[in-house]
Amino acid sequence: MNNHDKQSSSPEQRLQQLGIELPAPPQPFGVYVESVRSGGLLFLTGMMPTQGHTAKFLGRVGVELDVAAGYNAARLAAINALAVAKEHLGSLDRIKRIVRLGVMVATNAEFREHPKVADGASELLQEVFGAQRNPSRLVYGVASLPLGVPVELELIFEVS
Amino acid sequence: MNNHDKQSSSPEQRLQQLGIELPAPPQPFGVYVESVRSGGLLFLTGMMPTQGHTAKFLGRVGVELDVAAGYNAARLAAINALAVAKEHLGSLDRIKRIVRLGVMVATNAEFREHPKVADGASELLQEVFGAQRNPSRLVYGVASLPLGVPVELELIFEVS
Amino acid sequence: MNNHDKQSSSPEQRLQQLGIELPAPPQPFGVYVESVRSGGLLFLTGMMPTQGHTAKFLGRVGVELDVAAGYNAARLAAINALAVAKEHLGSLDRIKRIVRLGVMVATNAEFREHPKVADGASELLQEVFGAQRNPSRLVYGVASLPLGVPVELELIFEVS
Repeated sequence: MNNHDKQSSSPEQRLQQLGIELPAPPQPFGVYVESVRSGGLLFLTGMMPTQGHTAKFLGRVGVELDVAAGYNAARLAAINALAVAKEHLGSLDRIKRIVRLGVMVATNAEFREHPKVADGASELLQEVFGAQRNPSRLVYGVASLPLGVPVELELIFEVS
Repeated sequence: MNNHDKQSSSPEQRLQQLGIELPAPPQPFGVYVESVRSGGLLFLTGMMPTQGHTAKFLGRVGVELDVAAGYNAARLAAINALAVAKEHLGSLDRIKRIVRLGVMVATNAEFREHPKVADGASELLQEVFGAQRNPSRLVYGVASLPLGVPVELELIFEVS
Repeated sequence: MNNHDKQSSSPEQRLQQLGIELPAPPQPFGVYVESVRSGGLLFLTGMMPTQGHTAKFLGRVGVELDVAAGYNAARLAAINALAVAKEHLGSLDRIKRIVRLGVMVATNAEFREHPKVADGASELLQEVFGAQRNPSRLVYGVASLPLGVPVELELIFEVS
């Protein structure tokens, strides 16, 4: 695929080209919903590296898990985000921009490689939406996350 | 009260039915304000389980405090959020939707029950606003919070 | 300078009066951009106390660094935020309001002085934009931050 093809593909077409099949979107664990639209913005619940209600990655990055596992966990969480966005919008082609990507990494005081973990989500999103829709990004290390997962994502999309 | 009554009540009516009296809204500890409206969104400062400038809960959940105390702290912080929103808007009936609820839980690396703590805020909000206004939710464990409180809330409301 | 002068100055004029020269805006470390505008809101990437890609402060507040160092780190991060906003907008005079300031402080479980660290950013912003544009604020302690810096800022501006 050349650059021209890539630029002219829609997010839905790119998903197909990349061979990514979206899973069933995650369902709430509690008293909240997975996505809320207000005006032109779509806010997502914190996305985790889960399949259904099961964590696919457990542990802290830099402690029980290495950076590569954290990267893969962030990528899986981003795929879950796409599943939620598609359920809400019908099509990912309605996403005009990723406004905000927040990446919370469960880790310890000594860890420094948070951006490399976050890139697991950022690169998946860039593959699907293209660099021109890349988000602003917040990345930081937290004490622990629900279920014991290593990463959680915050996402705000601009939608049409 | 049957379901029909519950659905047809306004948030202000529900507050009364629930017997919740809103406290005086928290006042800033520093160089910021408790709420900012921009367009249709009302952003709140981080809400804590305080009364005036005094913390009503101290300690980390899963360390010095149990999950039930964390739940109650989150509920109190949510009540403070309602007091701030009411001060800004005049009436809670102007809240069309809770767009985002973030729950930061002060805890350690081993804790897993963050969602049960967050439900203290989520359930209070659902009691007042009904399930149809439930928010997207971010929940994570932090190292520590101002004053040593166990929980802090992020809130964004859609308002008319 | 009397209060009348201060009130009638624009943010760009105040910057000059304060003798603050904005540095070159930080450049992305990865697959993201430094700012995204959506409607009337400008979202910034997490701002850190860096110069170029070099951290100017390293360590946790309350552990390797004292509160004064944390305050100064937050102030530097806020100056970087102004550089990013100016690059995006052309002029800081297009900022109508600071909607949200989030301050993540790398620290330990015992720390309580997060608001004093956050004031390093808040006071700089108030000096430039005036109290009538003060933001809502989130402040919390995290396990660690990219590069090992002590503070990271979240910023959302309302712009014209």
